[in-house]
Amino acid sequence: MSITQAEIKQIRSLREKKFRDAYGQFVVEGEKMVQEALSSGFEVVKVVWREEIGEAAMARISQLSTPSPVLAVVSRPKTSGITPGEGLYLGLDGVRDPGNLGTILRLADWFGVEAVFLSEDCVEEFNPKTIQSSMGSIFRVQVEKTDLAALCRRFREAGKPVWGTFLDGRDIYREPLSPGGLVLMGNESAGIRPEVAAEVDGRLLIPSFGRSGAESLNVAAATAVTLSEFRRR
Amino acid sequence: MSITQAEIKQIRSLREKKFRDAYGQFVVEGEKMVQEALSSGFEVVKVVWREEIGEAAMARISQLSTPSPVLAVVSRPKTSGITPGEGLYLGLDGVRDPGNLGTILRLADWFGVEAVFLSEDCVEEFNPKTIQSSMGSIFRVQVEKTDLAALCRRFREAGKPVWGTFLDGRDIYREPLSPGGLVLMGNESAGIRPEVAAEVDGRLLIPSFGRSGAESLNVAAATAVTLSEFRRR
Repeated sequence: MSITQAEIKQIRSLREKKFRDAYGQFVVEGEKMVQEALSSGFEVVKVVWREEIGEAAMARISQLSTPSPVLAVVSRPKTSGITPGEGLYLGLDGVRDPGNLGTILRLADWFGVEAVFLSEDCVEEFNPKTIQSSMGSIFRVQVEKTDLAALCRRFREAGKPVWGTFLDGRDIYREPLSPGGLVLMGNESAGIRPEVAAEVDGRLLIPSFGRSGAESLNVAAATAVTLSEFRRR
Repeated sequence: MSITQAEIKQIRSLREKKFRDAYGQFVVEGEKMVQEALSSGFEVVKVVWREEIGEAAMARISQLSTPSPVLAVVSRPKTSGITPGEGLYLGLDGVRDPGNLGTILRLADWFGVEAVFLSEDCVEEFNPKTIQSSMGSIFRVQVEKTDLAALCRRFREAGKPVWGTFLDGRDIYREPLSPGGLVLMGNESAGIRPEVAAEVDGRLLIPSFGRSGAESLNVAAATAVTLSEFRRR
């Protein structure tokens, strides 16, 4: 197999969100990730091996500082509207850091979360850093961008509880938690915005045990503690 | 205040570990971090304001893509040998990612961990990415590089339990945990190395609740769940 200059240019362009949006495609790299893509329900458009196109061409299309031996171009799935059902759902309000989102998707996968909803201003789930830090969970966890306040109302109308983490919430270790429902996590510095917070039934706090003044947890670390608490009971 | 070319060159050199080691100094950026440095027990060698030296000079010494308004050069503390006492301690075996280490230091601060021990092959705690992701916890958490296997033996000889997380451990949610002792977390892909694992009394597992096959948690996420479990009881 060879690769044309036009193909190199098109794959390179997928580094940028506007081209990922235009083509409806994204790139994954490394043998493990490509294998996960092929065994997922996602459509793999193209697999490119370094051995077949040569080092120089691979370095041009790779998004990594050390180009991996294999890369795949994958079609983004058509999101068709996830219907909230039984089980546990996660909602992220303004999570901006791609690495945080990837780590949270990996956590959602580990803890069996049904789907992850993102507010419109969250980082894109197909951001290269998000994909890499999700360690393949991007292929296993349902993700949808949506209006979180409206989503909260849908959960509540269906009789399902809506939880959120706040600095003035109630001790998560002592609060009776539901096996299902929607759990909201907020932006790295601003937390959950007021119009979304207004829709929350259960305000939770992860208490600090330090004496010295850590002001908050990283949002992925807080998600880890929160999902662990919902799941262990 | 002005800044000389020699000073610019010296501050720039602190991007590299060999110069941080040679000078025994590191750099923090941003008003909040500089404030934390000044109110900590660390010796602040120099504070540099963008307004005083100009945009161009600041861009040269800053390690950030968007230079912050203020930067401080800080002396590394003389580590004098932490004596294991009562309370909870963390040991990291081969944690390589600077962001992971920073997030773990922030977690250790939040959960009131007495000190964090690093194996010799861990990333340096004064790596710029570690400092930024620690969000100031670098100034509040005691850190020491040490031989972890020997450290485990010191804890055990003092009658204090040594815990570790493993893929074949016992369910952390059901295991009786001690209020103090040493908790070990392993490398991002290889986990805790055998010679250290041999010194562990309590082998713990964070169970997965997914159906779909996430193979592991990010080490910082696993540390969040583990410290939460030790502290909530």
